[in-house]
Amino acid sequence: MATMASLFLKTPTPSSSLPKTQKTLFIPPLSFTVPSHPTSKTRLKARISCGLIEPDGGKLVELFVEVSQKDAKKRQALALPSIRLSNIDLQWVHVLSEGWASPLKGFMREPEFLQTLHFKSLRLGDGSVVNMSVPIVLALDDSQKQRIGRESSVALLDDQNNPIAILKDIEIYKHNKEERIARTWGTTARGLPYVEESITNAGNWLIGGDLEVIEPVKYYDGLDRFRLSPSELREEFTRRNADAVFAFQLRNPVHNGHALLMTDTRRRLLEMGYKNPILLLHPLGGYTKADDVPLSWRMKQHEKVLEDGVLDPETTVVSIFPSPMHYAGPTEVQWHAKARINAGANFYIVGRDPAGMGHPLEKRDLYDADHGKKVLSMAPGLERLNILPFKVAAYDKTQSKMAFFDPSRAQDFLFISGTKMRTLAKNRENPPDGFMCPGGWKVLVDYYDSLAPSENGKVPVPLAA
Amino acid sequence: MATMASLFLKTPTPSSSLPKTQKTLFIPPLSFTVPSHPTSKTRLKARISCGLIEPDGGKLVELFVEVSQKDAKKRQALALPSIRLSNIDLQWVHVLSEGWASPLKGFMREPEFLQTLHFKSLRLGDGSVVNMSVPIVLALDDSQKQRIGRESSVALLDDQNNPIAILKDIEIYKHNKEERIARTWGTTARGLPYVEESITNAGNWLIGGDLEVIEPVKYYDGLDRFRLSPSELREEFTRRNADAVFAFQLRNPVHNGHALLMTDTRRRLLEMGYKNPILLLHPLGGYTKADDVPLSWRMKQHEKVLEDGVLDPETTVVSIFPSPMHYAGPTEVQWHAKARINAGANFYIVGRDPAGMGHPLEKRDLYDADHGKKVLSMAPGLERLNILPFKVAAYDKTQSKMAFFDPSRAQDFLFISGTKMRTLAKNRENPPDGFMCPGGWKVLVDYYDSLAPSENGKVPVPLAA
Repeated sequence: MATMASLFLKTPTPSSSLPKTQKTLFIPPLSFTVPSHPTSKTRLKARISCGLIEPDGGKLVELFVEVSQKDAKKRQALALPSIRLSNIDLQWVHVLSEGWASPLKGFMREPEFLQTLHFKSLRLGDGSVVNMSVPIVLALDDSQKQRIGRESSVALLDDQNNPIAILKDIEIYKHNKEERIARTWGTTARGLPYVEESITNAGNWLIGGDLEVIEPVKYYDGLDRFRLSPSELREEFTRRNADAVFAFQLRNPVHNGHALLMTDTRRRLLEMGYKNPILLLHPLGGYTKADDVPLSWRMKQHEKVLEDGVLDPETTVVSIFPSPMHYAGPTEVQWHAKARINAGANFYIVGRDPAGMGHPLEKRDLYDADHGKKVLSMAPGLERLNILPFKVAAYDKTQSKMAFFDPSRAQDFLFISGTKMRTLAKNRENPPDGFMCPGGWKVLVDYYDSLAPSENGKVPVPLAA
Repeated sequence: MATMASLFLKTPTPSSSLPKTQKTLFIPPLSFTVPSHPTSKTRLKARISCGLIEPDGGKLVELFVEVSQKDAKKRQALALPSIRLSNIDLQWVHVLSEGWASPLKGFMREPEFLQTLHFKSLRLGDGSVVNMSVPIVLALDDSQKQRIGRESSVALLDDQNNPIAILKDIEIYKHNKEERIARTWGTTARGLPYVEESITNAGNWLIGGDLEVIEPVKYYDGLDRFRLSPSELREEFTRRNADAVFAFQLRNPVHNGHALLMTDTRRRLLEMGYKNPILLLHPLGGYTKADDVPLSWRMKQHEKVLEDGVLDPETTVVSIFPSPMHYAGPTEVQWHAKARINAGANFYIVGRDPAGMGHPLEKRDLYDADHGKKVLSMAPGLERLNILPFKVAAYDKTQSKMAFFDPSRAQDFLFISGTKMRTLAKNRENPPDGFMCPGGWKVLVDYYDSLAPSENGKVPVPLAA
């Protein structure tokens, strides 16, 4: 992962060594520390005000307990009623702990939940408004609620029953699942992946409160070092003297059309007068539906694409965005954009039908392909963000490469959809030359090969790359 | 209707005579003209800035064509493709024409529709935000869309095919009914009254544009004179030197608990230092579901209650709010409040479960009874409005009258729900003395008597009072 390591950067904690790379573009200064360190935070704040866009609420929220407090907090947690977290719950603890959802300080209490459902935004104490479009909530069932009783704090446990965090000053309120689903997805049709995974069988109560995170969330999948926090990303952008940061959210393999778009965006920003626009290439790393390509394979594919040299390592930062995926279209794209503001991005590239999918029951897309872009551009709390609409790229048969679609010679272009791409890879067929670098394509083919043949018609369980 | 006329006031048009009343509290000045008259509007504006709360967007929108232009506009309309309006469509034309939805200038185009669905608010050109929680839209089917073709204006016709208005600079866009319903009601369950009445069988397109209203909407039901426009209400509040206006939305018969609440609210406002708080008692006059008491009977009931002298005519204005009812709970209560700002109200009384109803399929209320109040208090664009939560009134058996509930002697109180009240009236039974004045109760009993006996189990068709 030579080239990869130069782009996919993770600040080592003081006790770990740097990844061994041929060409390290990101050498942490001696004073560089883990994100929860107060000195680091103070220094960061001063830097942010010099250049990068301010986090929502004016201050990046980080919810880690001081290192010196860890043992005491762990002991405190062990004496509290506890809730064991699901994988998605844990991903949200990760998201909250690093401040992607700033200024949220923990799982939503009812006022935040209601504002999110109804207004996709939160009004702060000073009257200002920040965007918040998807509920970040923790569900409880009746017996858990009873067990908590009148306690004001609970411990949150991982799947090994280790205390990960304390949720304090808690509020327990009703979880109206039907209303939550309808107002978030604009449908209540059965078959929405996040709903089936995380809501349908969840309890009828929600618990909100302030998080004190004892153990930073790790996945031990070989990719943790690529999971930079907003604070770490801001450090990196500052170190590179970025005067503009443009974020590209993705959950699919990268083809040359994407690369063209990213290169072209940088060119446009330079034309606008920016001196050093930096690309944040930001694959989503949390829960995705069963037929999406898993993160480990996507990261392998991104690596090959980057080795191909299409993107300039000097002006690109690749990192993993820890959020789970809702597939909630125009509602979710606001979350994707807002979280990137907190990581320092002031430009956001939005594509056709962002965070969309097919309707689970009807033969149509769930969302109008243009609504994501339109809703994003009108969303409260995102006024500071520059929205860059995706230019349509397609395969130009006359040049044998991906190019921006020119309607005046439509017949020269071939559109290769995600479905088409997946079908080709599954059948071990090759796309046209110039659609994707051969190394990247091979990763896709290998992934589909790795799936055990489906004998019962169900989607096979993906294997780690 | 002696007392009634002193409260239910409608500005006569210059060609009509004043209602004959024993005691007219509202004598229009000589210069008083129909709301569309420019002189009246200019004068009004100066007055508003002196005292009453400003309309949303800073200016009350009125969409009537000048009297001198009427004939020309009618001729123009007859040459345009046309859309025949349903009753509910016509109610919305009424609402829009008088500026209840200011600053909307007509049926929503897609940007307003999307902002309403997603954010319950509209961002104006100057960056300010106004509340707008229910879509005010006009649906088209494929053949209507085809008939309009590339025309930029259409004529809107009433059920006699008379041109009522022109909709100009039109935009036609997709009507995703499922998404509209889910995001407005927080459910897609079958059996939502407004949905069944107005959406389920509507076309798959929406048409937005600016309205030019040729004929003010009238219903010729003997109640038109009680339908004051926001401009007329503002004139009236100004004439009475109101320094606070508190609005009470209702769609049910008034009992003595309501009266107590209204009287008590005035007392509290006086205590707060206001010198002349005026009550806007504002029954909803548009579409309601089949088992609600029809407007004509409610107005008869209100008349009797007012004759009883519970409310002071000097400080009360009774008028009809022309909007149709959505039964969309926390979403709709925002619309009810916002429209009253446009009519000059700066205080809004909100009850338990406002605009709520039973879940159409499940044995529970559709909305949490407290959500309406909570959502209203956090709604964008309503920051200027003072929300007055409803104090719970119940029948105090020790005093034989309605009183504010005192939890320390709960056993002394009797709660009489709307359902209980309707059941008593249907069975010609009397409620406890002091619950409602006998005259008002008799109207209710007469209403249920007037319903043809239901032989097939269906709700009988209500008769006009």
